[in-house]
Amino acid sequence: MSTRFPSKLLEDAVNEFSSLPGIGRKTAFRLVMHLLRRDSSEVKRFGETITRLRDDVCYCSVCHGISDTPVCDICSDPGRDSSLICVVENVQDVMAVENTRQFKGIYHVLGGIISPVDGVGPSDLTINRLEEKVRSGVIKEVILALSTTMEGDTTNFYIYRRLSPFDVRITTLARGVAIGDVLEYTDEITLGQSIVNRRLFSLPSQG
Amino acid sequence: MSTRFPSKLLEDAVNEFSSLPGIGRKTAFRLVMHLLRRDSSEVKRFGETITRLRDDVCYCSVCHGISDTPVCDICSDPGRDSSLICVVENVQDVMAVENTRQFKGIYHVLGGIISPVDGVGPSDLTINRLEEKVRSGVIKEVILALSTTMEGDTTNFYIYRRLSPFDVRITTLARGVAIGDVLEYTDEITLGQSIVNRRLFSLPSQG
Repeated sequence: MSTRFPSKLLEDAVNEFSSLPGIGRKTAFRLVMHLLRRDSSEVKRFGETITRLRDDVCYCSVCHGISDTPVCDICSDPGRDSSLICVVENVQDVMAVENTRQFKGIYHVLGGIISPVDGVGPSDLTINRLEEKVRSGVIKEVILALSTTMEGDTTNFYIYRRLSPFDVRITTLARGVAIGDVLEYTDEITLGQSIVNRRLFSLPSQG
Repeated sequence: MSTRFPSKLLEDAVNEFSSLPGIGRKTAFRLVMHLLRRDSSEVKRFGETITRLRDDVCYCSVCHGISDTPVCDICSDPGRDSSLICVVENVQDVMAVENTRQFKGIYHVLGGIISPVDGVGPSDLTINRLEEKVRSGVIKEVILALSTTMEGDTTNFYIYRRLSPFDVRITTLARGVAIGDVLEYTDEITLGQSIVNRRLFSLPSQG
């Protein structure tokens, strides 16, 4: 049974919100009713921010991450090592690595991950651009920082094959027992790798 | 630790979404990334719908519900009995009662419920307007259709006191065991009321 809305504007707004992933019609209705109670200027700003986001946001021509300028802040920062490239799936991962404050190189955003199930192949990603950068000879090391899923491993392997003809060091994130993990419940592959790749014990140190 | 966004536009959009109730920063980020992948025209429509919602939506001058026109479709429908008023808390409740297709009168939307904890008193609601309508003498029956909570009961009682000087029938929704309820788990007050207000058994019939 379809719900009869007392207002077309209300119905339109509920439809728009419920088109978002994870937002059902009840939640959409609640969000719209919340917006109706807010100040007109605030709601206007909300609407304009969304419109502006899609129109004005651009992608950095160097790393392909989201940026407000043709070249993003990280890529245009002279203090960063541009011979060290961290390959990530998306801009969320750029932010995750940036938050560790442990990385001083630059990024290369693939824009996804190879996933035959979702119909994403190598040509949908920025792998050609990555190869060009490596071919130019200025890159010393490429860090593959993808998720440790089957798709991540496939993408790692594909990129490795594409880059191996060139004189570049290809590394990947260390695998091991995460901070806070209980050994008893750690999966055997991770635990096995963490034994094989064991390192000299050292006292904790800052950054 | 604050997250460093690679784009101000992105950050603004995430902030706007996470200002909504029940939307955290992770969810807000996911929604914004989803919008970035959508067609520009769709996102533009989303933004405009929100802006328009708050600017153009109006409240029916008769029932105080949300409407696109000065008098809503229900209040201006000559086929509805305007001497029978159903008092509800908000427009969601109008839609809930409309969906039953059992009510042929009109509505009066209070715009909330008396709740000292939330700082909502009688003067914040449209109770004066309801009294005026009843005073005019055209109303034969007022159905109090509020939630069966303490706030709902308080509001029922307050409205009853305000309207009792006038020649109007004041009714409330039947209380009883809900369809599908297991008797064993029905609370004793509801069960007690449903015994006191028992009715003649009849075979189920269509609406």
